[in-house]
Amino acid sequence: MDARRTIEQKRDGHRLSPDAWEAFVRAYAAGDITDYQMSAFLMACFLRGLDREETAALTNAMLHSGGRLDLSHLARPRIDKHSTGGVGDKTSLILAPLISALGVAVPMMSGRGLGHTGGTLDKLEAIPGFRTRLTLAEAAAQIEAIGCALLGQTEEIAPADRKMYALRDATATVESIPLISASIMSKKLAEGLTGLVLDVKRGSGAFLTDLDAELELARTMVSLGADHGCPVVALLTAMDRPLGRACGNALETEEAILALRGEGPEDLMEVTFALGAEMLLLAGVAREPGDARRMMDHAIASGRAAAQFQRIIEAQGGNPAVVDDPALLPQAAVRDVHAAPRAGVIAGVEPRAIGYGITALGGGRTKVSDVVDPTVGFVITARPGARVERGDPLATIFARDAAGIAAGRACLAQAITIADRAEAPLPLVSHRVSGAGVTPYSAA
Amino acid sequence: MDARRTIEQKRDGHRLSPDAWEAFVRAYAAGDITDYQMSAFLMACFLRGLDREETAALTNAMLHSGGRLDLSHLARPRIDKHSTGGVGDKTSLILAPLISALGVAVPMMSGRGLGHTGGTLDKLEAIPGFRTRLTLAEAAAQIEAIGCALLGQTEEIAPADRKMYALRDATATVESIPLISASIMSKKLAEGLTGLVLDVKRGSGAFLTDLDAELELARTMVSLGADHGCPVVALLTAMDRPLGRACGNALETEEAILALRGEGPEDLMEVTFALGAEMLLLAGVAREPGDARRMMDHAIASGRAAAQFQRIIEAQGGNPAVVDDPALLPQAAVRDVHAAPRAGVIAGVEPRAIGYGITALGGGRTKVSDVVDPTVGFVITARPGARVERGDPLATIFARDAAGIAAGRACLAQAITIADRAEAPLPLVSHRVSGAGVTPYSAA
Repeated sequence: MDARRTIEQKRDGHRLSPDAWEAFVRAYAAGDITDYQMSAFLMACFLRGLDREETAALTNAMLHSGGRLDLSHLARPRIDKHSTGGVGDKTSLILAPLISALGVAVPMMSGRGLGHTGGTLDKLEAIPGFRTRLTLAEAAAQIEAIGCALLGQTEEIAPADRKMYALRDATATVESIPLISASIMSKKLAEGLTGLVLDVKRGSGAFLTDLDAELELARTMVSLGADHGCPVVALLTAMDRPLGRACGNALETEEAILALRGEGPEDLMEVTFALGAEMLLLAGVAREPGDARRMMDHAIASGRAAAQFQRIIEAQGGNPAVVDDPALLPQAAVRDVHAAPRAGVIAGVEPRAIGYGITALGGGRTKVSDVVDPTVGFVITARPGARVERGDPLATIFARDAAGIAAGRACLAQAITIADRAEAPLPLVSHRVSGAGVTPYSAA
Repeated sequence: MDARRTIEQKRDGHRLSPDAWEAFVRAYAAGDITDYQMSAFLMACFLRGLDREETAALTNAMLHSGGRLDLSHLARPRIDKHSTGGVGDKTSLILAPLISALGVAVPMMSGRGLGHTGGTLDKLEAIPGFRTRLTLAEAAAQIEAIGCALLGQTEEIAPADRKMYALRDATATVESIPLISASIMSKKLAEGLTGLVLDVKRGSGAFLTDLDAELELARTMVSLGADHGCPVVALLTAMDRPLGRACGNALETEEAILALRGEGPEDLMEVTFALGAEMLLLAGVAREPGDARRMMDHAIASGRAAAQFQRIIEAQGGNPAVVDDPALLPQAAVRDVHAAPRAGVIAGVEPRAIGYGITALGGGRTKVSDVVDPTVGFVITARPGARVERGDPLATIFARDAAGIAAGRACLAQAITIADRAEAPLPLVSHRVSGAGVTPYSAA
């Protein structure tokens, strides 16, 4: 194939046929198209756009570049949840055990943190011994045995997407709705799901920061799922402040464990239950949101959810005792309280600043090869809208040393704004997008 | 520097500061920016465009990535001629000796053929022994000694441009007026010129095929030259049919030799003299076009131009006897006449088809690493507008074997159209673009 001809067509704003997408991606995966040709093509895609059919063709081409989890022999419904990424978002760690404890298979393939956003794999790896590098065969066997596996994108799944995503990250072509949608859906469709719930983050800490774009992303992924017989429901949730209190890998894992034991912060639980209810409804295990909520409450209160997390940890080589005793998670060398510099109302807790602050402390990545320190981060008790007096504690900083405490303090001083009055934060869950369209979200 | 940030700015249509251009190109030349980042950036440049100041900054940055011919100690004016590329265009081989025989230093850095267009270096290398790989120091010494050197773009000149051009060629980002202009001018400004004449080709065989784009390219390069104190004059010349009769490396070299001896075809001489007059006027050696023409006629009639070509060939290791006896040039194994299949008027001789036909015979390149056969090509005597009878000779095919003759015949059957009537071809020279603006061209 003539790569230049295909690049030229997209450059000039023409649509490419499904065969052209398939051929271009296949040639790239085979090494017949160079990285520099692909990155020029991706920039043309970014600027010229892809229509719905082209996005579907790209999704298919990336899906077909690798293998899939074959779970078709399982009688159970198979549901995953995916988030577009945020700060403090540990819902995956809660939902995987919680929903799989309720008879739904959860094959969950996650990513690592990059830039200001955290990653589920990094949080899981804060658990001593936890192994996220499962082969597709191992994951399938574990899902069959205990209903859930938590794994990274293997070499086997959508290898073309993995290469293309790395290029996009280095060439400022990430924030394209068709490219994001195709990347996410090519991986999720490889999980052999019967349904998928998407958490599309909104607000200053989100990937996209414009409601129209967020809704378009949700609609695109709902439609790509429908093309493949995989129903998708998306919720738009708030990322104008961190979700929950803990921000940092081990700190978030601890908060997820607390949540599974019924001790999670309110905002975190509200988002988790909203997503979990959609998973149970898609699975056909619950008939209506109220049922779903009661089932989840019961799984937590009865200890079944926490016990399921122990089973998953044990199956993947980790120390399951962390669920009973989170102090077994790696602990920061030093910690200190950050206090309010003035009286007023918390006007904002800026998630990007917090995310980059974690990276500054050694707990995040600026490039894929960075190694993260699981112990560092923040527990932020200040909530937007709350009134504080000068000297009130706003957060605790967890760091490696005194320099880290100072860096953390500088970050918080910038991230947490105190004013005389504050605007209302975004609603925790604002919209629901499904095959039936977009509706304002109303909790059960 | 953060490459992503710069790519993002250009992607979003913002203008980059001169410092940002300098830093980006410097980092690329140093290997701190990858090819795939540069190619994404170049696609963003292609689609978003560069304004005049950005084009100047890119030109500067590429110019500064390498060395220059230092000819400032020469008292003589230093004038080069550059063409945007065509088929049958051997004017450089005529003008370099002709103009340098008239007391003007001609430091001429040329390229190789690629795609359908020929290249001066390939034509020169048809001369047994001719060496085009001169260092800057060798070229400077030769120019001082005999007033002219004909060389390829060395590793020393604008290395960033060389790397970027190779990327653009592979990623469908060649046909951008600011990128073309910056690429040409960064190399030409490195020649230490006091003036530059540009031959911007028009018509179906040209790089750009739209008059507005051709004028914009000319204006852009005129303005870039002015920024650097190097006056530039551009002529727009016809490339809706090949220039002259000979198409193919050794065949064109032979025609250039004939031209230097006063035996060149009329169309070739008209374009050559138009460009040569501009060179002599820029040099201040002639006062007005009529003077320039008389000087050139005399240099040819007196044998000085041909003798100067012998000096250049000898200085660069070639056999100067080819000027007296062009039969010493490599000769094709077989040749055959192509005759008119019907009576009528020559409606067109399509340069692209002829250019690709030479490549099919082994005389051109589809990729940079291809080796060319100098002997093959066409001598086309059919002129647009001429009346022919069935069986009249239209061209001679020069090939390696009978299969080449057949391929050449197939090419000519497609390239030369005979109809009942023909539209007038483009004027050989149609516009002149200088610091004073665009004017219709009128010969002296």
